[in-house]
Amino acid sequence: MREGLTVEEAQDLILEATPILGAETISASDAAGRVLVDAIVSTRRHPPADCSAMDGYAIRREDLVGTSIAKPKTMPVVYEVPAGGRASRPLETGEAARIFTGAPLPPGADAIIKQEDTDMGDERVEIRVEPEPREHVRDGGEDFEIGDRLIEAGSVLGASHLGVLASVGRTIVSVHQRPRVAILSGGDELVEPDRPTDAGQIVSSNSYTLAAQCREIGALPTYLGIAGDTPEAIEIRMRAGLGADVLVSSAGVSVGDHDHVRDVLEKIGCQLRFWGVLMKPGYPLAFGIIEPTGQLVFGLPGNPVSTAVTFEEFVRPALRKMMGHRDIHRPVVQATLSDAIRKRAGRLHFVRVRLEMTSRGILATPTGNQSSGVLTSMIRGQGLAVIPLEAEAVEAGATVDVQILDLGFFDRRERGF
Amino acid sequence: MREGLTVEEAQDLILEATPILGAETISASDAAGRVLVDAIVSTRRHPPADCSAMDGYAIRREDLVGTSIAKPKTMPVVYEVPAGGRASRPLETGEAARIFTGAPLPPGADAIIKQEDTDMGDERVEIRVEPEPREHVRDGGEDFEIGDRLIEAGSVLGASHLGVLASVGRTIVSVHQRPRVAILSGGDELVEPDRPTDAGQIVSSNSYTLAAQCREIGALPTYLGIAGDTPEAIEIRMRAGLGADVLVSSAGVSVGDHDHVRDVLEKIGCQLRFWGVLMKPGYPLAFGIIEPTGQLVFGLPGNPVSTAVTFEEFVRPALRKMMGHRDIHRPVVQATLSDAIRKRAGRLHFVRVRLEMTSRGILATPTGNQSSGVLTSMIRGQGLAVIPLEAEAVEAGATVDVQILDLGFFDRRERGF
Repeated sequence: MREGLTVEEAQDLILEATPILGAETISASDAAGRVLVDAIVSTRRHPPADCSAMDGYAIRREDLVGTSIAKPKTMPVVYEVPAGGRASRPLETGEAARIFTGAPLPPGADAIIKQEDTDMGDERVEIRVEPEPREHVRDGGEDFEIGDRLIEAGSVLGASHLGVLASVGRTIVSVHQRPRVAILSGGDELVEPDRPTDAGQIVSSNSYTLAAQCREIGALPTYLGIAGDTPEAIEIRMRAGLGADVLVSSAGVSVGDHDHVRDVLEKIGCQLRFWGVLMKPGYPLAFGIIEPTGQLVFGLPGNPVSTAVTFEEFVRPALRKMMGHRDIHRPVVQATLSDAIRKRAGRLHFVRVRLEMTSRGILATPTGNQSSGVLTSMIRGQGLAVIPLEAEAVEAGATVDVQILDLGFFDRRERGF
Repeated sequence: MREGLTVEEAQDLILEATPILGAETISASDAAGRVLVDAIVSTRRHPPADCSAMDGYAIRREDLVGTSIAKPKTMPVVYEVPAGGRASRPLETGEAARIFTGAPLPPGADAIIKQEDTDMGDERVEIRVEPEPREHVRDGGEDFEIGDRLIEAGSVLGASHLGVLASVGRTIVSVHQRPRVAILSGGDELVEPDRPTDAGQIVSSNSYTLAAQCREIGALPTYLGIAGDTPEAIEIRMRAGLGADVLVSSAGVSVGDHDHVRDVLEKIGCQLRFWGVLMKPGYPLAFGIIEPTGQLVFGLPGNPVSTAVTFEEFVRPALRKMMGHRDIHRPVVQATLSDAIRKRAGRLHFVRVRLEMTSRGILATPTGNQSSGVLTSMIRGQGLAVIPLEAEAVEAGATVDVQILDLGFFDRRERGF
């Protein structure tokens, strides 16, 4: 087992060991945000035939050369083609047919006059424009033809994809499975949030943060509860999570006398791959794999901010890879740092920052107390400024990389145009 | 009723008529993405008392002045304070107590020696460093005190907020309701996606796009089905949607003989506020209000791209306002246009564009066929370039505003630091 990896080494090692989950077949209505396993190839033509893009009149264009408001032309309306209907016969020279949006173009017709350019007559219609070739005609197959590759494998399904799936008659799709994540909390001092804390107990908030972090990206959390500080208690809870794809413990995997997690992990078949990452918050991170199932095991540090940040940096990209995503990492923007940051070299720091859009770009202001116990510092900021391993100081006004945790940062109060 | 509004006028008029929905009280576990109605004020102190941030030994700092690896000091370990436990008596001069992360600091102790800086002795411990004042001590109330305002009203609840809620014992929260959106489709040519289209029918895909667009932001869609082209059929379906907060019809509200939607809307008490917006795609947009319920009614144009884009520009901001969001608009970025765009003055154009991050900023490339029937053009792009009303041309290389529809655009394939 390796110890004291850089963030990059740890992330690479985890992602290497992370499988992409197999397919499940679900209703398209439930597939928003999921990643498509196979490309969608059209078995239909859309629109099925040339059709009208407007309510108006189908005509033969040669009949209307030179027509204008000043020089209108009146034609007999020989039949009507409603949407969903068909022309009863081809359109002959000198004839017009009433037609509605989406209705198929009658044979012989080659343009549509929209009704605003006519007197909207029933038996005869006065036309006041000369149409362009194929004006207001939608070509059959304009959107797609049979055999067209409509959606590539690996696409993340958004609202428009679901519309396209519907329009090609696909109501069932095959997408990558969502990972099941078993979450374990541990410590004799911890109680659930609905219990009294009068005697110095601390609420176990980490599991609630972690479960929400899982749900945010579509993973399926199962909360195994709080294990007491005995090997037996930890083992019972942990075994309840062995059916999941990923086991996340915020019970602490360290060298302390009261940290039995590591022993239990070994007992249940977990091979630890590394322990300790050169970062702050969050050094005491453990990662392992349970053989032969390949279940990933993350032992996250117990401090609330360390738990949340190590989930962000290591668990989240792995879960997104499992779900078939290719863009597994958070957005990163360049920002100007409001205040100097001093640190010791040797660890990469993730500093919680509040972000503000200014005329000179994005300003990043550290959210005050950066103690890894202060979870409220997470909600006062939208991002993590990344201060490199070897840096000892970053001055006010310097440009730093900021990972965006709250995509709402990009949303706008006013429309932007 | 007004006709032919600008996009800005139409949006302002809609938002003015849009209420913010009232509160509902739900489990915090279900509250991700929801908007908080009342500020969360702490009724607890966290941590409840000064406590150890490390596994190690509690000491009195004055006892260890001058201690170092070269000059270690050995002290008796007089008792142990486990996490969740308490000191059995105050710590006297010259004594050390074994202590674990999260355990309360014994009275008299004023710093923690982490166990890596000792020989980890049980009865006696050799200490090899001189601690800083209060080193590895977490102050009681460091994260929050009783009475602290932890989360402001109007906050969008993310994973960290849910962690903070848990840590302060709040398992039930009051958030703004999610709007119920009744979606109606209409037209005799339309069939559901699981039906054959051999006889020229077209699949009704709009409702599926709209339902997904609703779900994407947390609104609750109810699909009322396809109404046939008779006033009776439309009225029956529409009345089934009167219990919703918003009624969205993609059945078309126009002046066509076969568009009975407008008549039915008037019959069921809808006062149309405007018809027609100076935009492309999507001119024939209608907006009204049903009295006395205040239900909003959107008559969206029937072409798939027009439906999706008008939902984006008008329905989505209204739904987000209803849910209590302040940042109701999509992100807008500046991008360089790859190809010239020609248009007539008089309408604002939303041009579907593919976005690419380059060394010189974001490049926006129109996704080809911009026909409002071509829904596949939506999935080939991540944004809408906004070409102003009065513009007749934008040259290749010009800077344009692009509204981001796919937030995945910001995600990264490689970590960004």
